[in-house]
Amino acid sequence: MEKIKEGDYVLLYFDNRRKWLVKANKEKEFHTHKGMVPIRDIIDKSYGERIQSALGYDFWLLKPNSCDFLSIFRRMTQIIYPKDAGLIIVKLGMCPGKKVTEVGTDSGGRTTLMANLVKPDGHIYTYDMNEMFLNSAKKDIRKLKVDNYVTFKNLDAREGFDKKDVDAIVIDVADPWRVVPHAYESLKGGCSIASFSPTINQVEKTVTALKENDFIDMESIEILLRGIHVEEGKTRPLSRMISHTGYITFARKIFV
Amino acid sequence: MEKIKEGDYVLLYFDNRRKWLVKANKEKEFHTHKGMVPIRDIIDKSYGERIQSALGYDFWLLKPNSCDFLSIFRRMTQIIYPKDAGLIIVKLGMCPGKKVTEVGTDSGGRTTLMANLVKPDGHIYTYDMNEMFLNSAKKDIRKLKVDNYVTFKNLDAREGFDKKDVDAIVIDVADPWRVVPHAYESLKGGCSIASFSPTINQVEKTVTALKENDFIDMESIEILLRGIHVEEGKTRPLSRMISHTGYITFARKIFV
Amino acid sequence: MEKIKEGDYVLLYFDNRRKWLVKANKEKEFHTHKGMVPIRDIIDKSYGERIQSALGYDFWLLKPNSCDFLSIFRRMTQIIYPKDAGLIIVKLGMCPGKKVTEVGTDSGGRTTLMANLVKPDGHIYTYDMNEMFLNSAKKDIRKLKVDNYVTFKNLDAREGFDKKDVDAIVIDVADPWRVVPHAYESLKGGCSIASFSPTINQVEKTVTALKENDFIDMESIEILLRGIHVEEGKTRPLSRMISHTGYITFARKIFV
Amino acid sequence: MEKIKEGDYVLLYFDNRRKWLVKANKEKEFHTHKGMVPIRDIIDKSYGERIQSALGYDFWLLKPNSCDFLSIFRRMTQIIYPKDAGLIIVKLGMCPGKKVTEVGTDSGGRTTLMANLVKPDGHIYTYDMNEMFLNSAKKDIRKLKVDNYVTFKNLDAREGFDKKDVDAIVIDVADPWRVVPHAYESLKGGCSIASFSPTINQVEKTVTALKENDFIDMESIEILLRGIHVEEGKTRPLSRMISHTGYITFARKIFV
Repeated sequence: MEKIKEGDYVLLYFDNRRKWLVKANKEKEFHTHKGMVPIRDIIDKSYGERIQSALGYDFWLLKPNSCDFLSIFRRMTQIIYPKDAGLIIVKLGMCPGKKVTEVGTDSGGRTTLMANLVKPDGHIYTYDMNEMFLNSAKKDIRKLKVDNYVTFKNLDAREGFDKKDVDAIVIDVADPWRVVPHAYESLKGGCSIASFSPTINQVEKTVTALKENDFIDMESIEILLRGIHVEEGKTRPLSRMISHTGYITFARKIFV
Repeated sequence: MEKIKEGDYVLLYFDNRRKWLVKANKEKEFHTHKGMVPIRDIIDKSYGERIQSALGYDFWLLKPNSCDFLSIFRRMTQIIYPKDAGLIIVKLGMCPGKKVTEVGTDSGGRTTLMANLVKPDGHIYTYDMNEMFLNSAKKDIRKLKVDNYVTFKNLDAREGFDKKDVDAIVIDVADPWRVVPHAYESLKGGCSIASFSPTINQVEKTVTALKENDFIDMESIEILLRGIHVEEGKTRPLSRMISHTGYITFARKIFV
Repeated sequence: MEKIKEGDYVLLYFDNRRKWLVKANKEKEFHTHKGMVPIRDIIDKSYGERIQSALGYDFWLLKPNSCDFLSIFRRMTQIIYPKDAGLIIVKLGMCPGKKVTEVGTDSGGRTTLMANLVKPDGHIYTYDMNEMFLNSAKKDIRKLKVDNYVTFKNLDAREGFDKKDVDAIVIDVADPWRVVPHAYESLKGGCSIASFSPTINQVEKTVTALKENDFIDMESIEILLRGIHVEEGKTRPLSRMISHTGYITFARKIFV
Repeated sequence: MEKIKEGDYVLLYFDNRRKWLVKANKEKEFHTHKGMVPIRDIIDKSYGERIQSALGYDFWLLKPNSCDFLSIFRRMTQIIYPKDAGLIIVKLGMCPGKKVTEVGTDSGGRTTLMANLVKPDGHIYTYDMNEMFLNSAKKDIRKLKVDNYVTFKNLDAREGFDKKDVDAIVIDVADPWRVVPHAYESLKGGCSIASFSPTINQVEKTVTALKENDFIDMESIEILLRGIHVEEGKTRPLSRMISHTGYITFARKIFV
């Protein structure tokens, strides 16, 4: 059984809709509508065990996964969805040792997810024009202790980016087509790029730019995730779902 | 520029529907409907460059990603889809150092994907009752050089499995509900399990078993991936899609 | 130009989310957050024209369609969705002259839609066990002036129904499999039945009953309707959608 | 029991994928891979009964519905899908007595469906520039005996159309935005228009034209129909589906 130590993150679980990411801390209390939870008391408990609130309700101490960590990133801009991030990770072949450029740090959620996969020998180079976003992301990434694997650059990637020979590039900005020519310069031959955009018009322009800049093997897709209510004899899809986050376009660089 | 060396894998690309994973080899030729491609000549070329077939057609030398590697696994059983594998990876928090149990090796495609993410300090323990599947998977995984991070077990997981204290468990068998009690024993507290099943009846039984075996935070979902034909002024979703691969159920272990 | 007469229904439109079905009436006022609309003044205006509220806002006088009328039916039970009703209408070949049995009147929304299509020579025989629902539906259907084409029966259809030789049957109750044997008796040979159910377990049982009761050409489907935000240069699917209303099963009666 | 008479249409059913629309005829034989079916012998049988082929296989005599009739229309252009046609019918309030303009007769399938709903007092005015399509549609519609309710016009609707004061308009041409101004002139105030287009770029231009031509209450949607394999204990969505037919845009005319 894995003991919870001071500074560890814990997913405090009440029910499927009420769960919070908290940090084990000798002095902290966490206030919920079901009473105060004495965070200090979770130190030395094991993951999977329970703790009671002052009002006598059970809260469970779960081990946070990558998705749970995404929730701590300030949601100033768009949310990174696990369904989209997961496919990008697989299609771009992310794994320990890879060097990846990310254009559009945003909240830093995806940056962290990727840093955690390429460590310890890989690295993420992340660009954002918005200094406030970048600083906020930097702070959160430090908390999660993957900051050694990330280089932050407060630059406009549409004017080019310095890092060369990266294994993969992820673009998540409003005008990806302007970043494409620089992405070409930065990416290793034969390697993959992924661009995420909410509107179909952005996708059209991006694909045109990719074609003009010697990328091939283009593929544009969208992913829908549908929840199912599972209960013996009463199973049915949930009534509502997120029907759109964005389109993802994949392509690979060639030397013509 | 990264040179292709003897023994390296290359994705030989003709067009979006015709691409093959080949291994650079001093003596090999690869025969296509567009003429023979002299595989021996790709050694010392760079990824991203082209090679001509005997009939004068261009083929591009791309860097294979995790999805491309999935294609080499013999498709005796079900195919692993990147959309499903990607979400499982993110939701189970897979990353370097994790110990993961997989019940249902099948072709070994997902095993390889996971081994590549947990290396060098993590490990995959994979079980399959079918010795032929297991041997075939073993052979492919060795080719991709991640066999050091995988332990194969030709056992019936419904009778229990020996490895304890793993960080995550993936189940992909016909009767996951029979594996659930043993999965509980094997998994660390607070950690996550994912079960993949094609039919809704399997999902019902699995969720019931998870509830009875002290798992919480249950979530069942399905993922749809839809391709888009992108062409300026003529953009539209593709006419056909895969509308079902399977449902995925996630849950976490607690100590009651 | 078609003049609005006393007693006519009008769709009072403010914007896409704020529209109301009202009846032209010499004495009525309609109160909205944008001021009182003098309903009495719409008499003798034409459909398509505007009227101003007391606060000076424009409201448009639109011609209500079948979907708009659905909104007046009290939503005590489930809502009838145009996407589902439309397919049932086409698949069951509804048109003037057809005789149709409906098991599960519910709000009467679908009853009205169907009555409006089979009139003047066709007829709808509608059954509901719940007398309150039936009376409420009857009242609304009278308002829409299609009550001459509807016969209401406050009976438990699981115990059989008297009307024979109908051209089509629509079932929308919690246990359709109990109605299936009686539906067989009531339906003309070679003709179609449609059953609507929210859960997949209901569908399984219904299909089993249909097979056992000499129905063939079985087809079970679900329909998803996705809204698109259309704006030049910013077009994208809406972020949220209804992801499930119910499954529809179609089948046809044979004599074995 | 309804007897089949000479000249009646019958859906000859072998299994879910093999069914044909045939016309009862004293002299005809119908050849299938399961042997010749003596069509002449179905006269005086009842719908729902069976007939044997020369090789001893059972074929069932089903009553064709609107969807089955759609299949006889020559598929030179695009197919009309029941899911799309059904929603258009409901949203445009089609029912006996309505006058409807259709721009783009195509195969005539949708024309027939609509004619069958508005008869005997309503009427469909259908336009197509392609004389060959129009003649072919005319021939099929005559066979189905709804030609009295349809007026065919071999004209370019982009140059205006003569019929005024129709209750609804359906547009299904490559450049709907050019038809919109004339559609405005032709439609009654407050009434609805529906435009069907395969590409998102067509939808953008159409919505712009609708806004510029005094239409409001705009709604653009797409419908997905997903088949379910239903079998006790093995129920799951079908593996493949049609993922796109087209987008439908609805709007209503106002007087500004």
